[in-house]
Formats: sequence, structure tokens, C-alpha cells
Amino acid sequence: MDDPRSPLVSTDTHGPRTHTCGALRPEHVGQTVVLKGWVDTRRDLGGVIFIDLRDRHGLTQVVFEPHVSRAAHTLADSLRSEFVVSVRGTVRARDAEQVNPKLPTGEVEVYVDDLVILNTAEAPPFTISAHEEKRTLANEDLRLKYRYLDLRRPELQRNLILRHRFYQITRRHFDLHGFLEIETPVLMKSTPEGARDYLVPSRLHPGKFYALPQSPQTYKQILMVAGLDRYVQIVKCFRDEDLRADRQPEFTQVDVEMSFATEEQIYDLIEGLMAAVWRELKGVELPRPFPRMTYDEALRRYGSDKPDLRAGMEIHDVSAAFEGSGFRVFDGVLENGGKIVAIRVPGEGDRGRGAMDRLDKDVVRKRIGAGGLVYFKRPSDGSETYSSVKAEVLPTVHVERAIEAVGAQAGDLVLVLAGPAPTVYTQMGALRLHMAEELGLIGDSSDGPWRFLWVTDFPLLEWDPETQRFYAMHHPFTSPRPEDVPLLDDDPGQARARAYDLVLNGNEIGGGSIRIHDRAVQQRMFRLLGIDEAEAEERFGFLLNAFRYGAPPHGGIALGLDRIVMLLAGAGSLRDVIAFPKTQSAHEPMSNTPDVVDERQLVELHIRTVLPDKPGRA
Amino acid sequence: MDDPRSPLVSTDTHGPRTHTCGALRPEHVGQTVVLKGWVDTRRDLGGVIFIDLRDRHGLTQVVFEPHVSRAAHTLADSLRSEFVVSVRGTVRARDAEQVNPKLPTGEVEVYVDDLVILNTAEAPPFTISAHEEKRTLANEDLRLKYRYLDLRRPELQRNLILRHRFYQITRRHFDLHGFLEIETPVLMKSTPEGARDYLVPSRLHPGKFYALPQSPQTYKQILMVAGLDRYVQIVKCFRDEDLRADRQPEFTQVDVEMSFATEEQIYDLIEGLMAAVWRELKGVELPRPFPRMTYDEALRRYGSDKPDLRAGMEIHDVSAAFEGSGFRVFDGVLENGGKIVAIRVPGEGDRGRGAMDRLDKDVVRKRIGAGGLVYFKRPSDGSETYSSVKAEVLPTVHVERAIEAVGAQAGDLVLVLAGPAPTVYTQMGALRLHMAEELGLIGDSSDGPWRFLWVTDFPLLEWDPETQRFYAMHHPFTSPRPEDVPLLDDDPGQARARAYDLVLNGNEIGGGSIRIHDRAVQQRMFRLLGIDEAEAEERFGFLLNAFRYGAPPHGGIALGLDRIVMLLAGAGSLRDVIAFPKTQSAHEPMSNTPDVVDERQLVELHIRTVLPDKPGRA
Repeated sequence: MDDPRSPLVSTDTHGPRTHTCGALRPEHVGQTVVLKGWVDTRRDLGGVIFIDLRDRHGLTQVVFEPHVSRAAHTLADSLRSEFVVSVRGTVRARDAEQVNPKLPTGEVEVYVDDLVILNTAEAPPFTISAHEEKRTLANEDLRLKYRYLDLRRPELQRNLILRHRFYQITRRHFDLHGFLEIETPVLMKSTPEGARDYLVPSRLHPGKFYALPQSPQTYKQILMVAGLDRYVQIVKCFRDEDLRADRQPEFTQVDVEMSFATEEQIYDLIEGLMAAVWRELKGVELPRPFPRMTYDEALRRYGSDKPDLRAGMEIHDVSAAFEGSGFRVFDGVLENGGKIVAIRVPGEGDRGRGAMDRLDKDVVRKRIGAGGLVYFKRPSDGSETYSSVKAEVLPTVHVERAIEAVGAQAGDLVLVLAGPAPTVYTQMGALRLHMAEELGLIGDSSDGPWRFLWVTDFPLLEWDPETQRFYAMHHPFTSPRPEDVPLLDDDPGQARARAYDLVLNGNEIGGGSIRIHDRAVQQRMFRLLGIDEAEAEERFGFLLNAFRYGAPPHGGIALGLDRIVMLLAGAGSLRDVIAFPKTQSAHEPMSNTPDVVDERQLVELHIRTVLPDKPGRA
Repeated sequence: MDDPRSPLVSTDTHGPRTHTCGALRPEHVGQTVVLKGWVDTRRDLGGVIFIDLRDRHGLTQVVFEPHVSRAAHTLADSLRSEFVVSVRGTVRARDAEQVNPKLPTGEVEVYVDDLVILNTAEAPPFTISAHEEKRTLANEDLRLKYRYLDLRRPELQRNLILRHRFYQITRRHFDLHGFLEIETPVLMKSTPEGARDYLVPSRLHPGKFYALPQSPQTYKQILMVAGLDRYVQIVKCFRDEDLRADRQPEFTQVDVEMSFATEEQIYDLIEGLMAAVWRELKGVELPRPFPRMTYDEALRRYGSDKPDLRAGMEIHDVSAAFEGSGFRVFDGVLENGGKIVAIRVPGEGDRGRGAMDRLDKDVVRKRIGAGGLVYFKRPSDGSETYSSVKAEVLPTVHVERAIEAVGAQAGDLVLVLAGPAPTVYTQMGALRLHMAEELGLIGDSSDGPWRFLWVTDFPLLEWDPETQRFYAMHHPFTSPRPEDVPLLDDDPGQARARAYDLVLNGNEIGGGSIRIHDRAVQQRMFRLLGIDEAEAEERFGFLLNAFRYGAPPHGGIALGLDRIVMLLAGAGSLRDVIAFPKTQSAHEPMSNTPDVVDERQLVELHIRTVLPDKPGRA
């Protein structure tokens, strides 16, 4: 086939488009317009060719009629899916029976008097169309390889547009509140504490390395010491982790720091942002202030430090109901200081034996790793309570006490786990989420409900039994609560931090703290984390030094932008809100990244590779 | 000395500040206010202590009077420079003779009834003060090491605030014009063409590497193929170059791409941005459209592809004036096809012999590398023209012809260089800039004048005699002018590109082009650059593939944000508009970056270092 494109493909004889493919309405009837876009679908009807022309703004029906232009009609015959064209024509009203109420442009069509084919297209490896009924979703590997085609899907374009708007609202919010957007370095110092750093070898300093920021934490604190007062940055951060399904090696955070800040000021600032975002993007007025819950309470009531409040089914400590029950398992747990905890699952009192056995085996034992499930059913017909443990083993009086404690009614199911605390709480938290998912209470949805929550008063430190040391629960720069500072000497594990997480529908979407601004407290904190003075000086000397010269009290927060946009979009994956995401092995299929490089490049960087299968040659 | 801070330094008993240190005016007199900031200066006058309290918003005088609060007055005695304090007090009008008209807050002062010292400060290594007369500028090495102190200087804070406002205006402009802000990957594929890449070893893919983007060029083109229509991103880019004084290894660009774009649309879009920026930040209405000049014309008239139009002194080809002069040097140049070029330096016709000899020796020969300077002076007293070449050697008639050609008047100096073109033009361009600098025409100034210029019609390719190959003058994705496509076969060096630079006061502040969107043309371009098919597939296969499936015509531009802000601020260095700049050896003195890392980290990344002085152990 001859190339049907105009001979100078880059010359566009129609000049700029007059409208996008989503713009034309009845008021444009009679106007001469120029549209540019992709051929979405084509129909030949009795010598007339209809094209749905697509761009990211919408679809417009364009019509090639031999009586209007024989040349355009003839050329239109060569059009195929995804060809890129420029058309000039006249807007006409569609006949009443041709109006498409599903399309914003559905009342009009454009009769083309000139067509320029700007580019041709081979048949794509999967169908792209703005018409929902024509789409089948190809597998994700293929879609990531052909990301430029996948990104033509209106869903993904909607997500990126949502993301764009989130940026704008966020920046406006912080600008209005006197925050300065300041860029911090991407090539920074390696200070691994937590995740692994991505490293960048230095050519000019042989044997030395930069690291990509896991967060601009130290720099934003330095900006506070520098008197910049209020800082915000929407910034890429990097973690070289073994990626779980919902992580990306490079991710974006809304990074915030504020001098003289109190927790209340941070809460108010961030709630204001969320309110603005939900108002503008969802038309929803979020109730404020957001509820708050301490870390301890969140664990006790929901078995999680990021409770999904949509799910209901609070956890009850029903240990008292089983005191002296004689049931060996329960008695053993209680004697060892453990807990018996229960949730009430409303409306599930009629579940069959098979379903309950599968729940016990596949979920409770296998996935959650608990010892086993005890359950009581109160059938909806009001008949007698069923206990999974025979009455001879666990007397009914205890069962009834537990049922009363959780407030179960006819038709409800009560699930019970027993074990050492706090493990049994987190296990019950997982079971609770499993049930909520089964009941359809917590699915991905772009329509809410939206349950925000501040989780507060995190422990300052976590003891790792394996390495026999404390780790910072938040990070080493988090301030202890002033009244808990003495505990740092006596019982560091009990000290609470001035740290807070923002949780939305069971997702941690932000975390922050009031920071340490006192050199002595910071040094004490490093010591608690097993970082001796020399190492502290080597890695964080610039911050410790900065604290000598008038560091103001300060605090801040970082919000997970990708995750927030994912939730706003009701998307099932972070990959659906990132233009060019990486896979779980940190690979980008479209460009095949990472890849080998020229040996010459490595020589210049004073490094060589040491492949794992050739240790002898290293 | 006992620690004068309140025992729980992080508890701030006054609550949030009611005003910044730049906010109080006579209308606040009588109000109780809370201020927080740094002690800038302190004066004891007859038992009353005066403090200038500083934050990034300004200075406020606070007064400690024993009659108002004995405790506060006593504590204030311990205050030193750069202590961080919170004060609560009452706003009073200053006595008429105490009013400081230089300070926006100069009509009032705050009488303190309670003082909390939030943090102490050691004596800083250099003086910080918002009072200009108290400042001496320490050397830059020291200031970069203590960047958190240097950043307290109002000049640097003003620069960062200017930069913040530039971001906001820029994003608003592009948002209004339907551009989507989209993030492209930082961990991308290494495709070195031009500068060196910064590489990032992959832990999960042994022996493979990511590269940091020199620009998101290929990704933004892919976004156009994906139908995203209009893209903008304010984005960090990275070049591992041997840094000149005015480069940074990581720099920020305003990156723009537009589908179906023509040059005119790009010019209009960017001029609109500049107009908005200068209007809002400078109160200046820029005349539009900006002037345009082809690359050839820019070289011919100014000896540079980034002419500084502030300097005047256009270059004249005065070869014709010297035809048959008999002056051996000029005759030789003309016989070899070279040029004799001249500039008129207004008002310098009375320069002494010594100054001219130094200009010849130190500037023309040594710095610029030209063979030597010929000059003619027309003294301001109207006396006879002086020629640096004796009349016996270069007859006066030729000198007078040249003087007429450049339009020199009494009092003017004419500088002449001869040599092969285009070298002699660039040499004269350098001499022109030297003279303009000497005459004070082109210094750093935040007040303008602002001379914008589009330079257009760049050559597509540059021949490198050393490697005997063509390089892309802009980059390999730049479209040739359609009418020059046939030249790609016959005489590629003559083909012009659809490329343009935006120049401001002799600085290239942006560059862009209409791109190739045709697979065959792109392949041809790669071949011209000596990239064979296999290599093109390996490195740019994803882009070539994308061009199979309906790539729209597209074009864009990238603006150098750091440089634009530097010019807006009238700053002498990029380091003055970047919060944490690196030195010329890509080192960051504050945190001592780059640095050595744990051997363990390298093992995980499958690399080892090969130090240049230990090649035998590699």
C-alpha cells in the first residue's frame, strides 16, 4: 500500500485545531472547525464513512460524504484504527434519532471537506477505544510494554488528569498558607536507616557515592534551622526494597515542614488540604475535625495501626466471659497472660459449616497464622446459638456471656481468637478485614465512603528481638513526648513519640511528627538506636551541628501522593496512577530498564560489576 | 552557664504565633501578640533591653522593661545572637523620634510580658543579620559548609521566595493552557548521547543499571504518542559533566511538550509565560512578540548563537573595505576565503595606547585566541583617525572605508579581527562581550533591561572533525525542516532543524524543537549519527516502536529554571538560587556528599570500586 500520508508529514496545512474532540456542542452548528486526533472507530454506511475521532478530551463523530468532498471521502477509505488525522469541516446537528446522549458531543457531527493523514498506524497489539463496550483489558505485562497505547485508555487518562488536579490544589493550598516550595537535592548522602538506599557512584570522587533520597527529611529540617519557616515540596523519593504489590521503587510524596509547629497546627493544615481536594475533585464536604485515636486504642479496637473505619466490627476483649470456663485452650491462654478477643459479624449468623471450616483453615490458620477459630452463630430464625466448641467442652453460659459482651443479635456471627497479646489483636484485625472484604464493605471505589483518621501517640521505639536493638518506629528525628523524656533512661520502650499517621479507609496516606530540635536529645536518641558518637557525627554531623546555632522547634508530615490519588481514583493499583510505573522487580518493561551499560561508563565511574554467579572472578 | 531554656524545650506555652516578625503596624497598637523568631541584634539601654527579633518575614523590635515583667527582663539578659525565642507582649507605638522608616514594622515595638527561650545558639562562624550594615560576606566555602546559617541571609531568602513564586506562576500558566503535569521516571534507561549519565546500579538485576535523566525527552514524546496532548513538568535533570562555573550536576527544567504543535504555538505559549512572570515578579510588561533571528544571522551579527542584545555593537563584515589593500595579513585572510569583521565601540575613541596593547595581548590573543587586534580610533576632539597599522602598510583610504562601513563617529573606537569564518565571528562575539562588560552594559541586575530573543533555524547536525562524524546539534529527535529532508541524503550538514532557543540577555534560557514523529525519518537520523540499526533498537526501540502506532506531530521546549531565576534575582551565580547547591566538583560541603558507603551496600548492588591508584587490585 502506498503511504497515504501527505508528503511532508510534519506540515499541517489546516493550522492549529479550533476545538478538541470533546468540545463541540449544538451552538457550534454551522461553524467551520479543525479537529485533530486518533481514529477510534470507523463505519461505512451506504457510501458514507463515519469516524469517531478521539483525543484525551473526548470523541467527535466526523463524516466523509462524497458530495461534500470526493477527495476526502476517497482518502478516508484508507483510514484505519489509530491513524492520526487532521480534518477540516462544518459542524452539523445530528438528526434526532442519531443523537448519542452518552457522548457530550453526541448532538453534532462534523462533515469533512478536507482530510490530512498526519500519521499511519499498524494494528495495535490490543484494542484501544473510548467506547467501553469495545474494550477488553489485555494482561498487564503487555499493557506495560506498550504503555503508550495503554495510556490512550480513558480510565488511565482520567487518573492522570485527577493527579494533575491534585498537584494544583495541593500547591495552591500550601501557597495560601505561606509555605515555600523549595527543592532539596536528589544526589544526597547515603544514610541508610530503615530501607536500602539507591546509590550513585561519583566519577569525580573515586570510591565515593551519592544516594537518592528516601525522603528529604534532614534537608527539610535544615531548612527550618535556616529560618525558611514553612516548606513544602512534591518530591520523588526512592527505596530499594523488595517490593510488595503496592510499592514502587520511586514514589512521590507531599513533603511538609513547619517551624514552631504543634500537632494541632499540622492536623488543621492537612485536614484543610484534604477538605479542599475532596471538595474540588469529589464534590464532597469532609466532616472536620477528623477523628483521632491513639496507637494503643487502634490496636485494641481494630488490631491495626491503620484501622479501616468503613468495616465496623470492632474488636472486643471477651477474656472475662471465659474466666474459669474449663475450656483447655482458653484457660491456657488466659493463664499465660493472653487475651480472648471477638468480633461480631452482622447478618452472617446463618453461614454453613463448610464455609466456616474453610474460613478456619484457609484464612485463620493458613493466611493469618492464628491457632484456630472459635465461633458462635445466632441464626436469623431466632433458634438456639450454635457454638463451634461443644457445650461439654465450653459451657454455654460462657458462650452467652461472650455473645452479650459483643452485642450479637439474631442473625449475627461471632468470631473468636485467643492468644498472646498484642499478636491476637493483629490477627483479629486481619480476620476483620477479611470479613469486611467478603461482605463488600471495603472495596476500591471512587465514590467513598471516605473515613479519615489520625492515629497518634505512637511508641518512639520498637524492640527488635532478632538484632537485640531498638529501631525508631517513625525515624530517628522524631521527638519523644516531653513528659516521656525521662523514660529514655529508665524504660525507652515505653516512651511515646510526638508522631502521627493519617489513615484513609485503612491506608496510611501520611505520617509525620514533631521533630527533635535539641542537640542533646538527638544524640541520646542516636545512642538508643545503637549509633555511636563517631557514626552519628559521620552520618548526621551536619544536622547535629545545625542544632548548635539556633534550631527552632519544628514538625511536619509527608503524604503519599500516589496512594492518595489511587484512592481518589478508586484504582486497584498504584500502577494505574503513575504514567510509567515499574513492576515488582523494579523493572520498566517499555524501555527495558534497568539495562547493561557500556563498560567504558563503569570505568569512568571507578566501579566494576561483580555478578553473583561468578564470585571467583570478582 | 545553666541552660536558660524552659525545661521542656519542645513545649511552647504561648501557643502559635499571632503574627510574623514582618507583620505589625500601627493598627495593631494595644493588641497582645505572640512572636517567634531569632535574636538578630540586642541593645541594653539604661536597664531596658531591646531585641530585633527576626524571621523570614522581617524584623520587629521587642522591648524588655523591668516594670512590664521583671522575670522576662532578667531572662532576656541571657539572650545572645541567634537564640530562638517566643515572646508574648503588647504592641506600642514608638515615639516619633524612634520610628525606623527603613523597617515596615518600624513604627511599633512589642513590650514583652513573657519570654520563652526555645533554643540557644553558639556564636556562629560568621555574622548573620537582617541589618545590611552588620553583614560581611564570608567566603563561599564557609558559607556552603554552614548553609543553614547562610540561608538566614535575607538575600538568599528573597531568591528562594522568588523561585517559589516562579513555580506557582509557571504551573498556573500551563494549567490555564490545558497542560497536564505528569511525572516521568527518575530511574530510567541509560542512553548517553551528549553528556555522561549518572548511573544507579540495580540490586534486583545484577550487572544492570538505571540512569538518572539528562532530560525526560523520550518519555515526554511517548506521552504525546499516548495522546496526553499537552505535558508540563518542573523536573530535576542530571548531567555528569566536568562542571563549568555556571553548571550544576542536578538542575531544574520546565519541561514542555505539545501535540500538533507548530513553532508559532510554542513561541506564543512561552512568551505568555515570560510575560506573566515578569508582570507578577517585576511589574514589567514585556513587549511581544519577542524578536527572532536565525542562527546564521545571530552568528553574523553577534558572533554567538545566544546574542546579548543589551550590548549593541553589531558585527560588520568589512572585508570589502579592505579588498586590495596590500596589507599582507588582510590580503592573506581574504585570499583564503576568510573575513575581516569589525565592531564600533561608542565613546571609546580616546583610549590610550597602553590600554589598547593590553586588550590586544591579554584579551584578543590570550583569552579569545585570535591572531591579533587591528583598531582605529576617532578621537572625540575630531582630530585625525588613528590606525594601529601604519598608513604605509594599510593605506588610509581602506581605513576610512571601514570606518564608514561601521558608522563610526568622532569619539568611537573600531575593533577589527581577520580570519577564517565562522571562527572570526565567534572571536569577535567574545571581544564584543568583553567590551560590553568593560563598559558596564551587561552586568547582573535585577532591574533589567530584559532583552529576549528567539534564535531559530539551527543546523540539524554538527560535523566533528575529531571523531569524523555528525552530532545532533540539538538532540537526535529534532525534526529537520520538511524542505530540507532531501538534504539528509545529499548534504546533511546543510540541513536546518525545526529547533529554537530562547535567549535572555545573552543567556540561553530555553531550547526546543518540533520533533520527528515518523519512524523512517527517525531511523535515518540515527544512521546519520552513526547509530546502527541494532544499537538504535537497543537504545531507542521503545520510541521507534511507539512511532508505529499513530504518533502525532509534536514539539516542545525545556526552560532552564535555575538560570531564569538567577537572572530574575540579579544573582551572580546559580548557587545563589538553589537551596543546597553543589560545588564545581559536584560536592556538597554541608553534608560532605558524596561519601564512602558500607562495603555491604556495594556487595548487595553487585559492584565493587576500582580506585584509580590501585589498578592492579581491580
